[in-house]
Amino acid sequence: MADDFLELLVESREAATELGAAPSELRKRGILAIADAIEAQIDEIVAANCEDLERGRATGLAENLQDRLKLDAARVQGLADAARDLAQLPDPIGDVLREFTTDDGLRIAQVRVPFGVIGAIYEARPNVTVDIACICIGTGNAIVTRGGSAAESTNRVLVGLMQRALESVGLPAKSVQTIDPFGREGAGRLMTARGYVDLLVPRGSASLIERVVTESTVPVIETGSGIVHVYVDGSADLEMAREVVLNAKTHRTSVCNAMETVLVDRAIAETAVPMLLAVLVGAGVTMRSDGVEGTESLPDTGWATEYLAMESGIRIVDGVDAAIDHINAFGTHHTDSIVAEDAGVVSRFLQRVDSAVVMHNASTRFTDGGVFGFGAEVGISTQKSHARGPMGLPELTSTKWIVRGDGHVRA
Amino acid sequence: MADDFLELLVESREAATELGAAPSELRKRGILAIADAIEAQIDEIVAANCEDLERGRATGLAENLQDRLKLDAARVQGLADAARDLAQLPDPIGDVLREFTTDDGLRIAQVRVPFGVIGAIYEARPNVTVDIACICIGTGNAIVTRGGSAAESTNRVLVGLMQRALESVGLPAKSVQTIDPFGREGAGRLMTARGYVDLLVPRGSASLIERVVTESTVPVIETGSGIVHVYVDGSADLEMAREVVLNAKTHRTSVCNAMETVLVDRAIAETAVPMLLAVLVGAGVTMRSDGVEGTESLPDTGWATEYLAMESGIRIVDGVDAAIDHINAFGTHHTDSIVAEDAGVVSRFLQRVDSAVVMHNASTRFTDGGVFGFGAEVGISTQKSHARGPMGLPELTSTKWIVRGDGHVRA
Repeated sequence: MADDFLELLVESREAATELGAAPSELRKRGILAIADAIEAQIDEIVAANCEDLERGRATGLAENLQDRLKLDAARVQGLADAARDLAQLPDPIGDVLREFTTDDGLRIAQVRVPFGVIGAIYEARPNVTVDIACICIGTGNAIVTRGGSAAESTNRVLVGLMQRALESVGLPAKSVQTIDPFGREGAGRLMTARGYVDLLVPRGSASLIERVVTESTVPVIETGSGIVHVYVDGSADLEMAREVVLNAKTHRTSVCNAMETVLVDRAIAETAVPMLLAVLVGAGVTMRSDGVEGTESLPDTGWATEYLAMESGIRIVDGVDAAIDHINAFGTHHTDSIVAEDAGVVSRFLQRVDSAVVMHNASTRFTDGGVFGFGAEVGISTQKSHARGPMGLPELTSTKWIVRGDGHVRA
Repeated sequence: MADDFLELLVESREAATELGAAPSELRKRGILAIADAIEAQIDEIVAANCEDLERGRATGLAENLQDRLKLDAARVQGLADAARDLAQLPDPIGDVLREFTTDDGLRIAQVRVPFGVIGAIYEARPNVTVDIACICIGTGNAIVTRGGSAAESTNRVLVGLMQRALESVGLPAKSVQTIDPFGREGAGRLMTARGYVDLLVPRGSASLIERVVTESTVPVIETGSGIVHVYVDGSADLEMAREVVLNAKTHRTSVCNAMETVLVDRAIAETAVPMLLAVLVGAGVTMRSDGVEGTESLPDTGWATEYLAMESGIRIVDGVDAAIDHINAFGTHHTDSIVAEDAGVVSRFLQRVDSAVVMHNASTRFTDGGVFGFGAEVGISTQKSHARGPMGLPELTSTKWIVRGDGHVRA
């Protein structure tokens, strides 16, 4: 098995070399061929998915994971539509980022190139298989997926049809491969395949991401959980604060950019706290704190809790510096917002909160690749290296320096 | 000790917050104060360095490491001069990389920000202590160094004087700290200090870098060894090839951008090989191959050898594709050059060789932050994530998205 595994990765590398050299137009045709193939095989995809779902129900897979696992005809159609949208996005490959000529006439340019081989590890989300494969083809990268045992039948069908679709337009089939047949051991080997895998993208639960980040020896993009805050400053427009907080918490609770804790400046706590409690409790949110009247107690994880539900922390803090300290201590460096009118306070918050996205007078729900105009959902990076915040196609590329001389030698 | 170690990193984080918020002008003044302090304390630095050198000689430190370890008065002056040069470079912090307004009026900007806390692990090179500290102050980052036991006395003096210099201009002393007192265990803890260290930069031997890359759970920039090639194509101007190859191999042999293997197109081998052997052997280079007449045999590491000496491999290959395959298989993705006149061959080589820097008709010795105009030596990245090739100040920064609304909520 050891050799089969490395052989698969070598095939991915060879496919990556061809794919990376293929013109943009051909790669776009590959994505469109995948969209067509998905549409043509909706029945087979749904049937394979039913197998996975039945096995999931039989083995007691959690309800929310069953929902994520499920691909009905409408969701499959959505995958084809998303692939077609992706084929319309600008291709970042070949973009010249910097360019200059040295005094002695050496021409130096930095251009965007594919990474090469990208690995993706996720769980029970067969839609990611198509998403990430199309994003990788769009950026000239070969993709190796580990989609998890729960979605194995669905993923097998999806990978097979994508390989045939790529081949039909003259692109290497092995641009898309899966290591699912290697089971759990395969995930571990992928994480340590230095020289074979150029970048690893985990998507899924906090525990999965933690495992990938700590065990990997290949570079990883950490797409993270969101313990997201809104701080209501003493200088805030309270009506605005009410609307922003309500939207950040209740617009959609199961997502990483939903608010988990509202921080309120002590200077206005007497009016702001009852007002915020009224609107949030009125919307059905269970409020939790360390002693604020009319709230439940905090869970064992305290302020470092990602509820992903109609529950929220509320804390009274001594002004903007205490809010910044709370956020940097308990947050996950994802998205944090201030509602305030005092320009000095706003600028202090935006500068000192150490998060991928910092906001002023806006709901945290806006941290989203779609809102940012990236068109494709690669994930939201909570690390500071390579990519930070919502990731678009350029974030799945590397760069290369191209130096052109006329026989230049160094004196 | 556990608590002392984490406490030190927390102090670095606090210093990073202040330093990151300090205006560019103040950070430049900090660097200049360091340059002044180094000049004023040349004698103390040299005396501490003598202690390290004596201990090194007594414990059998290798000659080349003794040379790297050594700081005489001229070298110390060089450190002060380099710091002053660095203070003149443009400050990347605050640069706006992308900026747009959404249809409903949300203003979104991506700006350069410091990483926060950067760790550096290196060996017996006290000049790196000053270099990396000044680069970090220039980019608003706090630095935690592990400079190794061989240079401990020198580094203690350097860190102390840098801390006092920063304090004298009103910047936090703890912007520069060392974990040398924690010994070898400290290096391991630094590599796994997730949340405390934002980026780790190893500099030194291949084995040191390998250890940092494989053991770290914090993001790492791999600055690498260079198994660097020049390919002489059948279409090459042979006189140009001779000069480029000679320069790439012999201009300076101990550096990562020096050539280790010359590949020769079989189509011209009959004339080119004797010509290249004559010039290289004539310059004192021991030539090694798998059977080319007039050469010695390859070492046990075969083509994957970084000689860093007046030795070189030479191999006859079947054209550009075989050269590309050789380079991608045995190289370290650092720098590779083609000498050729055929435009199609050149473009195939530049596209398919998977290295940080690819060159046409130029000596590999040009891969250098100075040549690229970056001014400061951060190292040459051989990984594809975050930074690739020579690194300047911008490569030691992260980004942050700043979103400004007027009470915007998501519909």
